Amino acid sequence: MIRLHVTNDLSVAAPVAPTLDQSRYLTQVMRLKTGDALLIFNGRDGEWRAEVAEVLKKGVILKAVEQVRPQATTPDLELIVAVVKKARVETIVEKATELGARRVRLALTQRTNADRLRLDRLDAIAEEAAEQTGRMDVPLIDDPVKLETILDGWEDGRRLMFCDETGGAPTVEALSAVGSGPWAILIGPEGGFSPEEGERLRALPFATRVSLGPRILRADTAAIAAMTLWQAAVGDWER
Amino acid sequence: MIRLHVTNDLSVAAPVAPTLDQSRYLTQVMRLKTGDALLIFNGRDGEWRAEVAEVLKKGVILKAVEQVRPQATTPDLELIVAVVKKARVETIVEKATELGARRVRLALTQRTNADRLRLDRLDAIAEEAAEQTGRMDVPLIDDPVKLETILDGWEDGRRLMFCDETGGAPTVEALSAVGSGPWAILIGPEGGFSPEEGERLRALPFATRVSLGPRILRADTAAIAAMTLWQAAVGDWER
Repeated sequence: MIRLHVTNDLSVAAPVAPTLDQSRYLTQVMRLKTGDALLIFNGRDGEWRAEVAEVLKKGVILKAVEQVRPQATTPDLELIVAVVKKARVETIVEKATELGARRVRLALTQRTNADRLRLDRLDAIAEEAAEQTGRMDVPLIDDPVKLETILDGWEDGRRLMFCDETGGAPTVEALSAVGSGPWAILIGPEGGFSPEEGERLRALPFATRVSLGPRILRADTAAIAAMTLWQAAVGDWER
Repeated sequence: MIRLHVTNDLSVAAPVAPTLDQSRYLTQVMRLKTGDALLIFNGRDGEWRAEVAEVLKKGVILKAVEQVRPQATTPDLELIVAVVKKARVETIVEKATELGARRVRLALTQRTNADRLRLDRLDAIAEEAAEQTGRMDVPLIDDPVKLETILDGWEDGRRLMFCDETGGAPTVEALSAVGSGPWAILIGPEGGFSPEEGERLRALPFATRVSLGPRILRADTAAIAAMTLWQAAVGDWER
């Protein structure tokens, strides 16, 4: 069944107007016709069965029929990732969506070799991944910000899982010992953190260092592995 | 430091002849000259410091100087993955190499929608990933074979971790309870296993079902997540 993220409010018989791109996808790629069914969600009102109400020249109109799943939230997990090559950032956004991150923050570190990123493209990737993975929300993607600015403005009560190439504690146990609640995972750039950055990170009272094994991982692999361990230890994989 | 996988035997002062492609990479991309240093490994003799001995028209000759790390093996982990789209299979091979799988077996399942795969390209991806991740071996990539053939010829004593979209036991605990030793991880196709395949898999005495959480994961995400859990539970990430 097609699953579409929309922006309109959803209630019984509410009309819903997808974007022009979505309309084209529905009618030209998926060949939907008036009366055909699909699933829609807006990040607030749960997942709804909907049907195509009208096919117009300038787009389709959908009609919400009934709620099939109530709104659910993903765990309060942010992924903070140093900007790496564009293709790898795109992979990371797709995978963060599948692995249930609520927000992706792009960080500029001292060794960041920033590719130009198109935020609108990253938003589109997150939206499509949310549709496919069955989530009921789309993660926020933040504009790139300096890592030190992110750390300076750190939110009270949020823990940081910090993947340290120089070693660290056993992984799942270290996370489980801290427990659930708001977390962030930080993934460094391909060249690693600078010595000063590493020093600051290791001294943070809210940070837990974990190791991702004896081999060097690319940034996208490290991000996926770290989110997996987090989900298995303190996220929603065990419930 | 450049790290290159070679095929020649390595001993003090042994001459080593990289392939033509590797020679071009060394001289034209990385601009190495006679006397410049690099690291080489062949999967048998550990990691060696080497230097460029001669730059010829038809390739370079290297000379092994001294062993810097003894040969190490990756854990006895096979990744069995249903053939999916080419780009995703390529990602899976790269990530399986970084995450320490010893062998990647491509499986044809009842719902496999086989893209044509170039095995030589997959071998090249595995080799490059092994060079970058710091491994001392390159995983074997097998030609696609029917899943039922793989199961019919199952090796005595090898456990199977089988990711079941229909649910399963908690992950890390289930694996830890079985313990280390030879393992394989099986990842199904995008459409999931057929009902008969699922039935056979669930009945296998050597199989452990695990769950990868409440969201639908793409095949490449599932493969990376499963290898991560395995490494954290019974692999070489904790040592």
